This record gives sequence, C-alpha cells and structure tokens, in this order.
Amino acid sequence: MKIADLVQSADWKAEKHVPVIDAPAQAKAGEKVTVEVCVGKEIAHPNTTEHHIRWIKLYFKPDNGKFAYEVAAFEFAAHGESVEGANKGPVYTEPFGKAVVKLNVSGTFVAEAYCNIHGLWEGSKAISVEE
Amino acid sequence: MKIADLVQSADWKAEKHVPVIDAPAQAKAGEKVTVEVCVGKEIAHPNTTEHHIRWIKLYFKPDNGKFAYEVAAFEFAAHGESVEGANKGPVYTEPFGKAVVKLNVSGTFVAEAYCNIHGLWEGSKAISVEE
Amino acid sequence: MKIADLVQSADWKAEKHVPVIDAPAQAKAGEKVTVEVCVGKEIAHPNTTEHHIRWIKLYFKPDNGKFAYEVAAFEFAAHGESVEGANKGPVYTEPFGKAVVKLNVSGTFVAEAYCNIHGLWEGSKAISVEE
Amino acid sequence: MKIADLVQSADWKAEKHVPVIDAPAQAKAGEKVTVEVCVGKEIAHPNTTEHHIRWIKLYFKPDNGKFAYEVAAFEFAAHGESVEGANKGPVYTEPFGKAVVKLNVSGTFVAEAYCNIHGLWEGSKAISVEE
Ligand SMILES: [Fe+3]
Ligand SMILES: [Fe+3]
Ligand SMILES: [Fe+3]
Ligand SMILES: [Fe+3]
Repeated sequence: MKIADLVQSADWKAEKHVPVIDAPAQAKAGEKVTVEVCVGKEIAHPNTTEHHIRWIKLYFKPDNGKFAYEVAAFEFAAHGESVEGANKGPVYTEPFGKAVVKLNVSGTFVAEAYCNIHGLWEGSKAISVEE
Repeated sequence: MKIADLVQSADWKAEKHVPVIDAPAQAKAGEKVTVEVCVGKEIAHPNTTEHHIRWIKLYFKPDNGKFAYEVAAFEFAAHGESVEGANKGPVYTEPFGKAVVKLNVSGTFVAEAYCNIHGLWEGSKAISVEE
Repeated sequence: MKIADLVQSADWKAEKHVPVIDAPAQAKAGEKVTVEVCVGKEIAHPNTTEHHIRWIKLYFKPDNGKFAYEVAAFEFAAHGESVEGANKGPVYTEPFGKAVVKLNVSGTFVAEAYCNIHGLWEGSKAISVEE
Repeated sequence: MKIADLVQSADWKAEKHVPVIDAPAQAKAGEKVTVEVCVGKEIAHPNTTEHHIRWIKLYFKPDNGKFAYEVAAFEFAAHGESVEGANKGPVYTEPFGKAVVKLNVSGTFVAEAYCNIHGLWEGSKAISVEE
C-alpha cells in the first residue's frame, strides 16, 4: 500500500475537504511571497470535537529538482473540547494557514490536509519565479 | 528543572527572538478572529540552514478556566537546505503564522517560539470577548 | 501571562497527567541513549475522542549552556474518532514515545505533555555524560 | 502535481531513506501493540545540521474502511546545531520512533519519512487483527 492510495483529490468547489492554495502565479527570486492555504473555501467543513481538519502541510517541488521540500505545517489544535464535555470549550481553530516564503526557482506548491475522520486530501498550485 | 527555566522573555522591540501576537483587543463570542504571530517584527531574525526559527505555538488561557488550550502550531520547515549544501536551496520559510479562531470567553493568548540555537521564547496578548 | 503559568507539575505517582522520563542516569559522550517518555505510568489517563493526551515534547538543557534544545516531539494522533462517531474508530494511540539520542555533555531532559482538556504538564530527569 | 509524485519508494535494504515498520503480523483487537519505525535500518542515514531525517509519520488504513487515520508523528528535532556553529551542538536525535497502539480491525500501516534535502519516502506493513 502506498501514500498515493491514501491521499484523495477532487474539485475543491464541489468537495469540502480539498485544500486550496492561494499564492501569486509569478514572483521574483528572493522576494517575500504570501501563501495561504485553507480547507472548505467554498463549502465549510465541520469544526467539532468529533470531526475537524487537524492539519495542513505545504510542500514545494522545484521544477529543476527531483525532491520536494516541506515549507510549512499548520496544526489546528482547538475544536471545542473541554472539561465540560465535547463542543463546550472556549476555542475553535479554523482550517486556515498563511505562510511567508522566499523562493529562488519556479516550481509547484502541494498542500496536504488531514480530516480526523475522512483522511488525507491534496491540492496544488504552480508558481513561476523570475530569477 | 522546569519549563519556566527554559522559556525566555524580553521586550520584542529590543530582542529579536520574542514572538509578537497581533490580535484585536476585543471580539464577539463566536465570530471569526484573526491572530497573527511572528518573530523578528522589529529586528529580523536570521533564516539560514544553521540558524532559524523552527516553530511558533499559540495557546489560549480562558480567564474563567484553569487550563490552557493549544490553538495552533506553525512549523517553519524550509531554511535553504539542499543537496548542493547549506543555504543553496530553493525555499526559505519566514517565522510568520496566521490563525483564524472562534472564542467564547475572554482570555489571554500566549505564544511560544523556538530558535534552533537560542531556545524557547514567549509573548502574550489578552483579548476581551463579549458574550 | 507566562508559559510558566500554564504548565503544571505534580508527583507522577499521584497525578496521571505528569510525563515521566525513563533514561539512564549516566551515558558516554556520542553513544546512543534510549529515552522513553509517557503519561499515565502509574495511573492510566483516558484515551477517548473527547479526552486524551495529544503530544509530548522532549527538551534537553545542557549544564554548560544557556539555551534548551528540542530533542523530539511525539504526536499521538488517533483516539477512536470515525465516520460512525466518537470512540467507534479502529485505532487509538497511547501516550508513549521513545527516542534515540546522542549527547556530548551532561544536562537535563525536560518533557512537556498536553492533555486536550487539562492543558500542559511537565517532568524532568538529569543525565550525566562522560566526555 | 500530486503527493504521489513527491513520495519515493525503494527497497530499504538498498536505499537508506526508506522508513521501515516493525510491528507484529498479528494482534488481538484492543490489546496494546508496539510499532517501531526507523530510517536507515540497514544503511545509516547522515545526521548533521545540514542533512538529516526530520520526521516520520505513521498512518493506518483499515481493510474495511475508505479513509486513512494518522496514528503518530515523530519529530527528530536536534541535529547538532548550536551557537558555536553547525555540528558543534550537544544533542542529535536519531531517526527512530516507537508507538503503542490499540487496533480493532485488520489493516495496513504506512510510514512516511522526510529527509530535509532528499524529500519524502514511504514504507508499509500489514497487520491482521483478530476481532
Ligand atoms: Fe471531514
Ligand atoms: Fe536565534
Ligand atoms: Fe486529562
Ligand atoms: Fe537524505
């Protein structure tokens, strides 16, 4: 069995689990680039103690390289848990993350998201970097 | 030895390791609140393969509760490492994170940041929530 | 507010949240040392979708140094969650971790554990390293 | 681009990056099962500030289910970094992890490992659970 068998993909406009990457299509080498990732951009995903998005990881695969780099990991840790019971807690973290990165070459961002009951999902976005 | 002996604090305007929390001073219960955290707001911290900010964790301590909740964790994973050697890689992640949260009660955000060679640092910010 | 105000300590024989560190009292510089950490060594902690130990982090503070190093982080990710509902899932991860490390100097391990509803807890253990 | 394009697989006896899973082939439902994961079982992987295994994640895919569950994540955080420079620090974490889990059904463990310069690698192992 492979990771490829575990990670699901779909159209994010129709499937609420798919991570969406918002990043510019072009950037200059070495300048700061803002990359936002989220799950549920079109259709909100539940955020309860029993069912929630736990994390999103962001990778970058350079066009000129063989290997992927992990860029950032966002853990969404609070989902209403509390000593009074499930969904009675004071804080909920939404499945949204934002990173600031510097790139030297063109490549593709790949995001991986994890729902605690619906498993792994992915999305990607290319970025062209002017060297 | 205690965690308290390991975590350092200082004025973020003078010390580049201190995590700064940007969040509104007031919010309404259940509405989405944006919380930004960063290290090096006034004085930039190095971002090299050998020396960088690895992560920031964000906690929330409700005024009416005894225990702290982890809200989010941000891992800054890329620091120029590559097969060509240190600081020759295609991507650097800056020590910046942004979370979107919903709160039900007033409390205090506490951020903890980790520099891979200068250890643990902290900062905090209170938020008043209208129930 | 400080991290020190958030992290609780107690006798692990009486309080089920306290992380316990099992490591040798002595080691030789550069040899592999096994370090085990767990929560609930004497009194088991619940492991349910609503209440569980989420993670343990392990730090090392060298006697001759000012700063602490993160050694390892263990995330306990599965707690019976499933599409059939809470506590009906196929897998539960117990709050146990084991790391293998090499040390060059004497110091103290500090473990930090997080219960999703009872917050942060700590424990520590010194190790003498023959250089 | 897909996660499947980023994760590499190979024979762990010949390729030092492949995570190896040591777990029993059979277990009883609800009993504690020990699962060990490591990189470099046959051929050691470097462990330096510039080149090291950063983490291993462990997933479980039940035979009777569609989705994968994250079981545990192991972060190997220390690789000789220090204020004196790269590879002069007091602690190195080896790419080894051990989890204790309870399973209710048969399935397959899948491990994913990340080298900071050689990217993502995977391995898997099935386990039969007597219900
Ligand atoms: Fe879901
Ligand atoms: Fe620093
Ligand atoms: Fe607890
Ligand atoms: Fe490698």
